[in-house]
Amino acid sequence: MKIIDKMNAAMAQGRPFFSFEFFPPRTDEGVQNLFERQDRMASYGPTFCDITWGAGGSTQDLTLDIAKKMQNMVCVETMMHLTCTNMPQSDLEAAMQRLKEDGIQNILALRGDPPKGQEEFKAVEGGFSCALDLVKYIRREFGDHFGVCVAGYPEAHPDNIVDDPEDMKKNYWKELEYLHEKCKAGAELIITQLFYDVEVFLKFVKDCRQIGITVPIIPGMMPIMTYGGFKRMTTFCKTKVPKEVSDALESVKDNEEAVKQYGIQLGTDMCKRILDSGVPGLHMYTLNLERSAVAILENLGLINKSKMSRDLPWRAGAGRRRSESVRPIFWSNRPKSYLNRTNDWDRFPEGRWANASSPAYGALSDHQTMRRHAGEKRQEKVKAAWGTTLSSPSDVSDVFVKYASGEIDVLPWNEMESLHSETGTIKNEIVALNKADYLTINSQPRVNGTPSSDPSVGWGGDHGYVYQKAYVEFFASPEAFKSLQGRLDKRPSITYMAVNQAGDVHANITPQDVNAVTWGVFPAKEVIQPTVVDPQSFNVWKDEAFQLWTSEWGSLYEEGSKSRKVIDKVASTYFLVSVVDNDYINGNLYQAFGI
Amino acid sequence: MKIIDKMNAAMAQGRPFFSFEFFPPRTDEGVQNLFERQDRMASYGPTFCDITWGAGGSTQDLTLDIAKKMQNMVCVETMMHLTCTNMPQSDLEAAMQRLKEDGIQNILALRGDPPKGQEEFKAVEGGFSCALDLVKYIRREFGDHFGVCVAGYPEAHPDNIVDDPEDMKKNYWKELEYLHEKCKAGAELIITQLFYDVEVFLKFVKDCRQIGITVPIIPGMMPIMTYGGFKRMTTFCKTKVPKEVSDALESVKDNEEAVKQYGIQLGTDMCKRILDSGVPGLHMYTLNLERSAVAILENLGLINKSKMSRDLPWRAGAGRRRSESVRPIFWSNRPKSYLNRTNDWDRFPEGRWANASSPAYGALSDHQTMRRHAGEKRQEKVKAAWGTTLSSPSDVSDVFVKYASGEIDVLPWNEMESLHSETGTIKNEIVALNKADYLTINSQPRVNGTPSSDPSVGWGGDHGYVYQKAYVEFFASPEAFKSLQGRLDKRPSITYMAVNQAGDVHANITPQDVNAVTWGVFPAKEVIQPTVVDPQSFNVWKDEAFQLWTSEWGSLYEEGSKSRKVIDKVASTYFLVSVVDNDYINGNLYQAFGI
Repeated sequence: MKIIDKMNAAMAQGRPFFSFEFFPPRTDEGVQNLFERQDRMASYGPTFCDITWGAGGSTQDLTLDIAKKMQNMVCVETMMHLTCTNMPQSDLEAAMQRLKEDGIQNILALRGDPPKGQEEFKAVEGGFSCALDLVKYIRREFGDHFGVCVAGYPEAHPDNIVDDPEDMKKNYWKELEYLHEKCKAGAELIITQLFYDVEVFLKFVKDCRQIGITVPIIPGMMPIMTYGGFKRMTTFCKTKVPKEVSDALESVKDNEEAVKQYGIQLGTDMCKRILDSGVPGLHMYTLNLERSAVAILENLGLINKSKMSRDLPWRAGAGRRRSESVRPIFWSNRPKSYLNRTNDWDRFPEGRWANASSPAYGALSDHQTMRRHAGEKRQEKVKAAWGTTLSSPSDVSDVFVKYASGEIDVLPWNEMESLHSETGTIKNEIVALNKADYLTINSQPRVNGTPSSDPSVGWGGDHGYVYQKAYVEFFASPEAFKSLQGRLDKRPSITYMAVNQAGDVHANITPQDVNAVTWGVFPAKEVIQPTVVDPQSFNVWKDEAFQLWTSEWGSLYEEGSKSRKVIDKVASTYFLVSVVDNDYINGNLYQAFGI
Repeated sequence: MKIIDKMNAAMAQGRPFFSFEFFPPRTDEGVQNLFERQDRMASYGPTFCDITWGAGGSTQDLTLDIAKKMQNMVCVETMMHLTCTNMPQSDLEAAMQRLKEDGIQNILALRGDPPKGQEEFKAVEGGFSCALDLVKYIRREFGDHFGVCVAGYPEAHPDNIVDDPEDMKKNYWKELEYLHEKCKAGAELIITQLFYDVEVFLKFVKDCRQIGITVPIIPGMMPIMTYGGFKRMTTFCKTKVPKEVSDALESVKDNEEAVKQYGIQLGTDMCKRILDSGVPGLHMYTLNLERSAVAILENLGLINKSKMSRDLPWRAGAGRRRSESVRPIFWSNRPKSYLNRTNDWDRFPEGRWANASSPAYGALSDHQTMRRHAGEKRQEKVKAAWGTTLSSPSDVSDVFVKYASGEIDVLPWNEMESLHSETGTIKNEIVALNKADYLTINSQPRVNGTPSSDPSVGWGGDHGYVYQKAYVEFFASPEAFKSLQGRLDKRPSITYMAVNQAGDVHANITPQDVNAVTWGVFPAKEVIQPTVVDPQSFNVWKDEAFQLWTSEWGSLYEEGSKSRKVIDKVASTYFLVSVVDNDYINGNLYQAFGI
């Protein structure tokens, strides 16, 4: 979806919007951390996130890869920067073709900095020397497909900042005309260079309007986070710093925390003035950091962490996935794996899972590129959590108990630490289940008509009611499962299915019995049922669930070691069991487990 | 669907089944009454109903038309009788082609009686002389399309009943062989001629099995309803009557009610013995009457009126409509009109109304063939209910108040008297609404998680919970609507739409807002939402709703009369208003009306 369309919708509702900018990290671990961070920040509801262009070779590929994952796995509307630096037309076209394939519809078109070692920007052979030509090229080659954004320089481009006031003025207006040209060529949106003088920005907007620029002009805000960083950035960009800002900063420059606090305060004040002047939204240069940008938006009331509203219980997708409204519960702690394995679907289920005729899940392999335990540090952390040595299945149970109790925050079936399942009201029951050797990997409490605005279990907006059937999914030894099965069979409200690695199935439902376990009822809508327990998906999930034992956990230990054998034994003998209590009004799922 | 498949399913579950046989009435009013009766009897859950063949000319057409309506409007699995009497192959083929087009898949193949005035059966030119040839013809021309049933004669066909015991025995076994031939030719099911000696039937079944007949043999039961009728029938069919039966009947023959009671008792005893012997089901010759057949099935526990379970809130369709699972609420008191107007749909909505892309409703005209007020008597009754003269809209309101109070049971927007809406828990509120000049034509109370086994609002089987949003639909004068609208707009849980005959619309929802107003949650299922308020359907319904004022009510009065003008005035100025209270947990829809 084009950013401008989302902005227009927000403007029509008088709702200020915001966005976050990131850059490609230099290490694998950095990339992994970035996704975890984006995952959290995406949940605050930015209109879009953008990723800057790392020109040249592998960085270029990395940028394209990050953009793809932002759009399709972090599920946030994504804009990629694209510069002319070292980019012949063929490379530009290839990059845009990839964006198109990956469902990314937004480009920030820039000239870019001169290549390292060069002072002045020169077009590469077969390339462009200015953003205007790039904009024209995008429109000529891809028509209306992309939303195109361009940069605006409230204090003029650093290259054009000169000492002589008359020349400066001339340069400034010339640049404005050039910006106008970019808009005429097809740019739909302007994001500005950073600034610390609000008056400069407001004058820039006024001047743009005066010469006939009509597209939205969104201020690029860079919170001051460190004194050194601020100094380097303002020097590089030749940014004007008001005296009160530099005075205030100088007085706290040796106190890192005070600098940050001041940055947040200043950013809040600046943004407030800007929004009050009628500007519809803000663009935050995050430098891949979360705290300052989020704090400013919280101060402005644009983010309310305690009242975050979700459209659906899980984060809805961007791009092609926008229509998706139902998912199986099994991947709820591994959404990226689910997104990956369903990325090739032509059509996503809407309204009812039953509409998705025999979903063909993709293989697991691609997902492995997003593995969590990259990096030695993480490996150590994980091993500390799951045990440096294991001598019996009861050591394994202990790890699950620790996870359920919140003592550790990683488990193979939980994709990201930030997703640590908030068992909330059923924490005690879940701990008890694990102590009784039912090794839980997924659960939800029953919910009976709670207002949809509820901060904990609500979703879908106001004036509705939401429901959940109690659910628990766990591994259990064959003996434990057998004795449990007898108890489950006695309860008419309970449906279950169990399978071991060899594929032996025990269930009291048929493969066609799709169970909606989360649903919501809203004014003037059909019932929305976003989460289902679907036997056919379970059959796919079980392979992933069993594989994680060895790929994530067993592989921590030497081949042939006792620990490795313990994991292999559990993986090869235990049943994976999925249990639903269909009586969401009066049921008590845990009674059946004797806890 | 083929009857044999339904029977096999019932047998697999060990569930005894039953069916009802009807004949084509001689008058239009009789036909109308038959449909009302079938409508009620279909709700008892027969495996199928059949209609006998009225050979020749218009009766023949009537039979085909009744069969079509049974299948597609009464929504019961239908079997049509077809005889060789006066039917050349071309006529037989034409009749079967019509059955195929109308979605009827079951034929009872008979030779039939000789044409009137003839003693012996002779094949008509180009026709058949026996049921066997007809069965072969059906299979040859239509392959597997039809389920074919044939008649079995436990006491031999009347033509073959002779005095000499040796000859009789020969005839009997010869007939059995002939029956075997019919099965070999493709008959999948045998229904027997009536009998009053259970031993005769049981011996017949045993003899059939002995010679290798394997298809189900279902006893045709004709309850004794009148002494005269019984005498005529048993004489005509040469039926053996056990002495205790004739003795018992003779002793009560002058007491009509005692005869009926005896018939019910005898029928119950006979059926019980038959079912106990392992026969899987019963076929009831109703003679178009309800009481005796239903009483026997009630005595046997096969019908439990106080615990009738519905699959869906409305009667689910047969044939092509079997998959249908969602309907708009507007036609809930006019299901036949809805069935008629949607009969041409290629695909019926399943699970969600949103799946039915812009339904194209058929015209009203065809429905007019099923008008209720045929017959002078009915016309008189209706006029008495709705007023022989009307002098102002308040006279019209009085009629609605009477209907809501239960003083009268016909209203133009209610298709059949047997559908008199059971406002049940909200009767007082509905009466009050009508007294306040909101002329209600449809309503349902809110229901918040009532067990699905509830006899009044339950449906869909056990172990589920059902829900309804409070709904009311009514006509209101422009002034009344305007003042109401202000009050409705103040309540966030209320959504409404209103339209007058000229098409002026007032609504607080968009045409895309489909509202599920009845839904149910069941074990191991997705949420089922069988009734919706759909703005696009409302737009179709409104034409029908407004037309009924004049076609059903205004037309009772002379053109130009005061009464006619009152109706025309109301129809041309009032708004049709549809109101949903989306707060089915805590809402009070009627408060908004100030009652």
